[in-house]
Amino acid sequence: MRNLRLDLAYDGTEFYGWQIQPHKPTIQGAIEAAVERITGERAAVAGAGRTDAGVHAAGQVACFRTNTLIPCENLNRALNNILPREIRVLRVCEAPAAFHARYAAVAKLYRYRILQSNVCPPFLARFVYHTPVRLDAERMMRAAKCFEGEHDFTSFAATEPCRAKPQKTGRRSAPRSAVRRISFSRVFWRPETSILTYDVRGNGFLHHMVRNLVGTLIEVGRDAIPPDAIPAILSARRRPEAGPTAPAHGLCLVRVEYPPTPEFKNCDLD
Amino acid sequence: MRNLRLDLAYDGTEFYGWQIQPHKPTIQGAIEAAVERITGERAAVAGAGRTDAGVHAAGQVACFRTNTLIPCENLNRALNNILPREIRVLRVCEAPAAFHARYAAVAKLYRYRILQSNVCPPFLARFVYHTPVRLDAERMMRAAKCFEGEHDFTSFAATEPCRAKPQKTGRRSAPRSAVRRISFSRVFWRPETSILTYDVRGNGFLHHMVRNLVGTLIEVGRDAIPPDAIPAILSARRRPEAGPTAPAHGLCLVRVEYPPTPEFKNCDLD
Repeated sequence: MRNLRLDLAYDGTEFYGWQIQPHKPTIQGAIEAAVERITGERAAVAGAGRTDAGVHAAGQVACFRTNTLIPCENLNRALNNILPREIRVLRVCEAPAAFHARYAAVAKLYRYRILQSNVCPPFLARFVYHTPVRLDAERMMRAAKCFEGEHDFTSFAATEPCRAKPQKTGRRSAPRSAVRRISFSRVFWRPETSILTYDVRGNGFLHHMVRNLVGTLIEVGRDAIPPDAIPAILSARRRPEAGPTAPAHGLCLVRVEYPPTPEFKNCDLD
Repeated sequence: MRNLRLDLAYDGTEFYGWQIQPHKPTIQGAIEAAVERITGERAAVAGAGRTDAGVHAAGQVACFRTNTLIPCENLNRALNNILPREIRVLRVCEAPAAFHARYAAVAKLYRYRILQSNVCPPFLARFVYHTPVRLDAERMMRAAKCFEGEHDFTSFAATEPCRAKPQKTGRRSAPRSAVRRISFSRVFWRPETSILTYDVRGNGFLHHMVRNLVGTLIEVGRDAIPPDAIPAILSARRRPEAGPTAPAHGLCLVRVEYPPTPEFKNCDLD
């Protein structure tokens, strides 16, 4: 049986997130339906990151097992012919039998974009969070750096349980710990575009974690939380200590990283 | 009575063009409804260019007469609060009594964007025409230059009559001539983005004219029409001589120009 890797980009605006849900358009649902139509097989397509409703992806990775003999390139074209233009398959390639898009991932990079201007151009409206409030980028930069390193992110985890069904696979049970290692957490300000960009790379993210980090950074930027308060918010391990959840549509899953391996074929994305 | 000028940007994807139509979402319809809700007045909002269904604008200009005393800035905010995020009012300002967005315009600049790649990123899909076909940019550049100057553009005018109702105003009857002056008609190729951009500036455009120019340039780019054939296509004055109509969603009305006047107040857009 083949194990195929899909590299995906999507505009999440019109979807109820990655995870398949009955009677609702989701990314996973659209891809599984397209795979079934092409191969005749009902495959479970596993995504590296289960993005929320409205969240976008420039480099989501997914995988599925199939008996189809269709070559990768043809499958890629066929998927893009069937899928709506909001979902694009960037590449299909053969993955090692043991590869799993989620369990094999060693890091993910998310990007959140905030447009600071009086009016949001309609061409950006789906892809940035727009606020006319002046945010102090320098304060946000200082606060963002405090997330780097290994921390317990309970204060930044969604309090309601994730709607995701428990994984049936016995390969690895979901870790209960809220400890994550963040290797990169930085705010950039580009005055020429009036866009504040927040890039965060880590070995894993709790449900709503990036949006809660951003919501807290926005509070810092508008002077409601001092940058120096971040370590105390982290160690409190209480969700109410942090800022609110930033809107989904500013967020994009940019990249999923895997250990270097010579086993991927036809997968020279970099 | 005040005469107000609106500077507008919109993502035309979900709209049936500029011009108001019963039971269909249009840009003019949305703006007139918003104006009525704010001022209580049913105003006719005249646009400089009646963009087709799916065409975008970064710098559309419109005007309407009103007795409201609401200051321009407040009206601007109120309109953006009511309008969908796909339509943004960039500026509201007092115009001279004689100003009319369409009749006073001396030039318009349109931009058409063609993405040449195997896959169209979902973030661009609404705003570029995507084709995997390799187009010869150099040939297109040569052909595009031939449109500069004053020509009869009958070969590039929609053959079906424009659905627009005849203007009731007696100010100036629509010119029957198909002669237009094109001051700028250029193709740019940016390999780093894989986007071919066509910019065309003229004193007026016939219905579908820009899309027909582009459809013809695409034929030149894929070697179906020689660049040198453009003068003959122009002088034939027969629509079938030119290429097909390019899709609407690659087109954007970038700018509308008016004679310099010291009379505009609060209108320092440049």
